[in-house]
Amino acid sequence: MSAFDLGSYLETRRREVDAALDRALPPADAPPPVIHAAMRYAVFAGGKRLRPILVLAGCESTGGDASAAHALACAVEMVHTYSLVHDDLPALDDDDLRRGRPTVHRAFDEATAILTGDALLTAALEVALGANESDDAAAMRRLEASRILLAAIGTSGMIGGQVDDLLAGGAGSVVDETVVRSIHERKTGALLRACPVIGGVLAGADAAALTRLGSYGADLGLAFQIVDDILDIEGTSESLGKSAGKDAAAGKATFPAAIGVARSRALAEELGARAVETAGALGAKAAPLAALAEYAVRRQR
Amino acid sequence: MSAFDLGSYLETRRREVDAALDRALPPADAPPPVIHAAMRYAVFAGGKRLRPILVLAGCESTGGDASAAHALACAVEMVHTYSLVHDDLPALDDDDLRRGRPTVHRAFDEATAILTGDALLTAALEVALGANESDDAAAMRRLEASRILLAAIGTSGMIGGQVDDLLAGGAGSVVDETVVRSIHERKTGALLRACPVIGGVLAGADAAALTRLGSYGADLGLAFQIVDDILDIEGTSESLGKSAGKDAAAGKATFPAAIGVARSRALAEELGARAVETAGALGAKAAPLAALAEYAVRRQR
Repeated sequence: MSAFDLGSYLETRRREVDAALDRALPPADAPPPVIHAAMRYAVFAGGKRLRPILVLAGCESTGGDASAAHALACAVEMVHTYSLVHDDLPALDDDDLRRGRPTVHRAFDEATAILTGDALLTAALEVALGANESDDAAAMRRLEASRILLAAIGTSGMIGGQVDDLLAGGAGSVVDETVVRSIHERKTGALLRACPVIGGVLAGADAAALTRLGSYGADLGLAFQIVDDILDIEGTSESLGKSAGKDAAAGKATFPAAIGVARSRALAEELGARAVETAGALGAKAAPLAALAEYAVRRQR
Repeated sequence: MSAFDLGSYLETRRREVDAALDRALPPADAPPPVIHAAMRYAVFAGGKRLRPILVLAGCESTGGDASAAHALACAVEMVHTYSLVHDDLPALDDDDLRRGRPTVHRAFDEATAILTGDALLTAALEVALGANESDDAAAMRRLEASRILLAAIGTSGMIGGQVDDLLAGGAGSVVDETVVRSIHERKTGALLRACPVIGGVLAGADAAALTRLGSYGADLGLAFQIVDDILDIEGTSESLGKSAGKDAAAGKATFPAAIGVARSRALAEELGARAVETAGALGAKAAPLAALAEYAVRRQR
């Protein structure tokens, strides 16, 4: 893997995703301007674009052209952003800071933040399904990819994890590893897992490759979230761009709370290594996936 | 039209829609139970099911079998319900009562209401797109119908209207007919207009019929909302199942506020009559659509 330059890959892909998002979102001055300004404020906040890059890398890894995956890459990032905007609301996590800037309900207001999340989810699906195309086979692949996206973000996936996360919270609550794993696998894991699979579907990958992409995504997704939990404890608000130490203070269900930082770190490394191995089995074109799994574990923000 | 028994038609279709919704939604005890209970609480609240019935009637009117439109009928009702759950939130319209019962954020809590709306929108699209089918032509029709649904409920449609409605509000604000019409045509009109068109798309209707269904839906949609405005003034909370007189008190953008009750009533009747005429041009199978347009104008709740 040492020959692969992840930094330059990430930078190229990030620019590519940002340009595609700029084309996919309505202009900031389209009426009503306030909602479009808020959507763009939320989306263009300096995110890592890990999810859309996983869609592009998943597509490439199974022989597809990344450009065929631009729409779904935008869709997963818009879905991710919608979930952040709603999670940050006062009634949920009540966060003032996100990626170093005021959250949407702070920069605008609560009503606008609720509708901005709704609008991003709606726009994500519009972008994913695309316009009427002459190529029926491509339309059917996008349809299947959209189904996978929807299954990942509903009540058996992302929303279900968020519900259980809210229920599990509270200072002094006992945090159990099984519960934490179940929440993470749905709240953040389900969408992360779906990303490389969506890329594979768009590339027309076979069932065996899709299964590998799913295993890879599941391992990477859980590793990524465990590292998030660790960074919440070890990072500073400045390095993270969001309030540090908040999970611990709120008695949130996190891996360090359940099994300690050292075992959490070891588990993340184990999951990351397995994801690298799975990517290896997909062949040379999966080098970006392997590098991304390493990055998910060793990142500092 | 006198031979058509609308009461019995509505009752049959309402039961059909309720049964389809019961199958389409996850069971109330599926984990996490609270979100599924809240989704069902919101959906099974004694609604008129006008939107899904318009989908079914639109499908029938152009020679389709209504059963082919069950999934999209459920999807539009779930979308409508999501929009009500979010609109009722304290940060938006701050309503305690909906269809004679506590709103979702009152019966559960605010976080659950936000996530319930999100979950209903997500589930609506899942139901609309359906599972992998052997029939590619049917899958493509559902894809096209889903695109029409999404276009109606995004920032150029329903959400855009809601944003402008919030901005236009406030006691003492001057209410202008052009502004009210623009808000109504998007906030409630866009989804109502889409319903019969979606039915037609599922039936494989030709472009001329789809144009007629669109004109019909636009007229019916605006007439329906004008009557809503009038009922808010003339109805009681008991007969409406929601807080009466609230729009007027809040200085909301309504037709009676802009042009008075008498002219509002006349406009609704004119729009209703034109919708009946358009339905007539679609032929005998559009008798339910014609009757629905009459009903939209003369209803008392």
